Amino acid sequence: MKTIRIALLGLGTVGTGVYKLLERRKEEIPDKAGVKIEIARILVRDIEKAAKKADRKLLTTDWKEIIEDESISVIVEVMGGLEPAGSYIMEALGRGRHVVSANKDLIASRGQGLLEKAKENHCDFLFEAAVAGGIPILRPLKQCLAGNEITDIMGIVNGTTNFILSKMTDENMEFDEALAVAKELGYAEADPTADIEGYDAGRKVAILASIGFHSRVVFDDVYTEGISAITARDIEYARELGCVIKLLGVAKNTETGIEARVHPMLIPDDHPLASVKDAFNAVFVHGDAVDDAMFYGRGAGEMPTASAVVGDVIDILRDIQWNCCGRIGCSCYKNLPVKTIQDIESKYFLLLDVEDRPGVLANIAGVFGSNAVSISKLIQKNAKDGCAELAIVTDLVKEYHFRDALTILEGMSPIRKVSSIIRVL
Amino acid sequence: MKTIRIALLGLGTVGTGVYKLLERRKEEIPDKAGVKIEIARILVRDIEKAAKKADRKLLTTDWKEIIEDESISVIVEVMGGLEPAGSYIMEALGRGRHVVSANKDLIASRGQGLLEKAKENHCDFLFEAAVAGGIPILRPLKQCLAGNEITDIMGIVNGTTNFILSKMTDENMEFDEALAVAKELGYAEADPTADIEGYDAGRKVAILASIGFHSRVVFDDVYTEGISAITARDIEYARELGCVIKLLGVAKNTETGIEARVHPMLIPDDHPLASVKDAFNAVFVHGDAVDDAMFYGRGAGEMPTASAVVGDVIDILRDIQWNCCGRIGCSCYKNLPVKTIQDIESKYFLLLDVEDRPGVLANIAGVFGSNAVSISKLIQKNAKDGCAELAIVTDLVKEYHFRDALTILEGMSPIRKVSSIIRVL
Repeated sequence: MKTIRIALLGLGTVGTGVYKLLERRKEEIPDKAGVKIEIARILVRDIEKAAKKADRKLLTTDWKEIIEDESISVIVEVMGGLEPAGSYIMEALGRGRHVVSANKDLIASRGQGLLEKAKENHCDFLFEAAVAGGIPILRPLKQCLAGNEITDIMGIVNGTTNFILSKMTDENMEFDEALAVAKELGYAEADPTADIEGYDAGRKVAILASIGFHSRVVFDDVYTEGISAITARDIEYARELGCVIKLLGVAKNTETGIEARVHPMLIPDDHPLASVKDAFNAVFVHGDAVDDAMFYGRGAGEMPTASAVVGDVIDILRDIQWNCCGRIGCSCYKNLPVKTIQDIESKYFLLLDVEDRPGVLANIAGVFGSNAVSISKLIQKNAKDGCAELAIVTDLVKEYHFRDALTILEGMSPIRKVSSIIRVL
Repeated sequence: MKTIRIALLGLGTVGTGVYKLLERRKEEIPDKAGVKIEIARILVRDIEKAAKKADRKLLTTDWKEIIEDESISVIVEVMGGLEPAGSYIMEALGRGRHVVSANKDLIASRGQGLLEKAKENHCDFLFEAAVAGGIPILRPLKQCLAGNEITDIMGIVNGTTNFILSKMTDENMEFDEALAVAKELGYAEADPTADIEGYDAGRKVAILASIGFHSRVVFDDVYTEGISAITARDIEYARELGCVIKLLGVAKNTETGIEARVHPMLIPDDHPLASVKDAFNAVFVHGDAVDDAMFYGRGAGEMPTASAVVGDVIDILRDIQWNCCGRIGCSCYKNLPVKTIQDIESKYFLLLDVEDRPGVLANIAGVFGSNAVSISKLIQKNAKDGCAELAIVTDLVKEYHFRDALTILEGMSPIRKVSSIIRVL
């Protein structure tokens, strides 16, 4: 039986998980894939530190030792970041190595070039772990749901923000307090910007949209809005409206183009995504044949992410054994336009602090009306000191109409403050 | 570009869906798979009837016309039932045709022989649609989650019973009433036995367990218990305990063997499976790396099932194109024992009608105690006419201990009736 030699690039959280899981499954892999495996090399930055986690004689700090070793056929990139990961993968594919990557930043910005390089060299380049960690989603989209025209992909694809919003909802915390808890428990990084501003989710949306709609969407095409402006009061209003607030990645394939965006959203309590709590992730898909489907699980973490990486590795082993590497590569065979946020229709929840006197509501309604914004719900509250709180839910309206109305409202004297603007599903 | 000719066996609900979907995707399939397709023949029983749904010149009542046509490479069996479907598939595989089937009855009883035949002849034999309709679950288990040791698979895999239980829960209906509604709306067949007695779910459990645990489980190995004994009163008690009642297919890979069973179960309100309503299905999987994952969607119906079938067809097209047919066949490389229901541990909910007099509870507790059954919760209610209702939830206990206790209880004079026995998650 053939032995396939594998190198890991990186031995951080995910790398350690992959190392453990490959060792744990070593004996069983021949039954699954018809070949044996051997971990040949691990690229690390600090050998002393890494030696606590893996067999010291596998460790190297020298990329050349890996790329020049012709006996290594599979390279698992779990170091993260654009560089040097991007150059390493490019070189590996160029030299006929098969690559597994968990690197969403890289794939969401430079996926096309990498997939083309893989194709030229008849290599597999797989990255199931780059979206929603352990949850099987890319392979189901490419294979199981290949008979569908996918029209909607909506997901809770960032565990940090979902944890924060769950805390705010279940324990009435404000954002800062919930973020502090998330940091304390290791759910948020010291610099949480990429998570809380929706950049991390945006990268996943780019990848999901590209694969789901067969047309290239890169991170720069994705509109992102984070959760740092969400308040306990917003969540309380959402509850009153029978909703919860989630940070959603949304990709839609419409007749006028692809929508790709990340923003907080009020979703009804009984929507399958509403019950996705804490650090769990879920991706909701709508296709013309399958109708609604949802994939739920752990979107991050050492072993869940390793599960996705090792699944890809085993697939590559099978492909090597069957001599069909490159069987499913780039699937972007369409070239659809991507809409700007200005042209996207949403419903909005907004919260206004207004002067509590006759005629104000008529003024507001007039501004909305003349800008094509219909109001579907209105709650007025807490009139005191001459000031009232006005919560409004609009019907579907194009972003630019809504923004026009908002600009006028913000200039009106009876409107003291527009405190919240959140989209509604 | 090569054209692959496909024959359909059957043009019922699923067959019609597959026909429509293949026609709908015809132009796009070359982009996905690198080959063109053509529907060559459709085997039907009644040409006149079938001509209303598909092009008459494709129809035939003669299997020989299909199997002897060497230009047909892929056969899609959507006729259902053990025979003649089983013989047709066997013959097709024997003659080197690739087969897609949605036939859970057949695969749950004779899957092994069919997979062996496929292997001998280097053919693909795929059946994603046989479990949970449109929900991608078999391919994710075989590929995406291949790095895991799967220990638990739990699913709501029968839409009819889930619809009935949802109606009973949400609208306080009794079973007969909810069944009547299900029949009226087309969710239950005229003879609903296979659904309501859990046989349909049992077949799916056999397939899921075989694939998840890499060891053959057939329908006869699966313990089945249906929902016809569930009452509105049971559901009311479940609610009081913070639970809902679902018909669950359960497969566990334990150190002492595989458990495979279908029965109603009380599951906590906040379990991801609890919110799976109406005719939706969901399969919950636990693996040592991925932790918890869930797959949710439509488990039946014309187009969702066609989605799974066409996904398999496209995979076969790719395999033909890449010359790697048979790449992922039978994955039962272990030979694990299957436990009988007697040896399985559960928690139980039971409802007793007892004489309302001192000492009765002590008697009951004594019987449980001497049979290794611990009581974790007890609710006493409705004492009138000298009779009380006693709801008991036990701790984990082996089935045979529980049954021993029950036999003694049933013979005790203060116990008028044991009205309900339902397992608890």
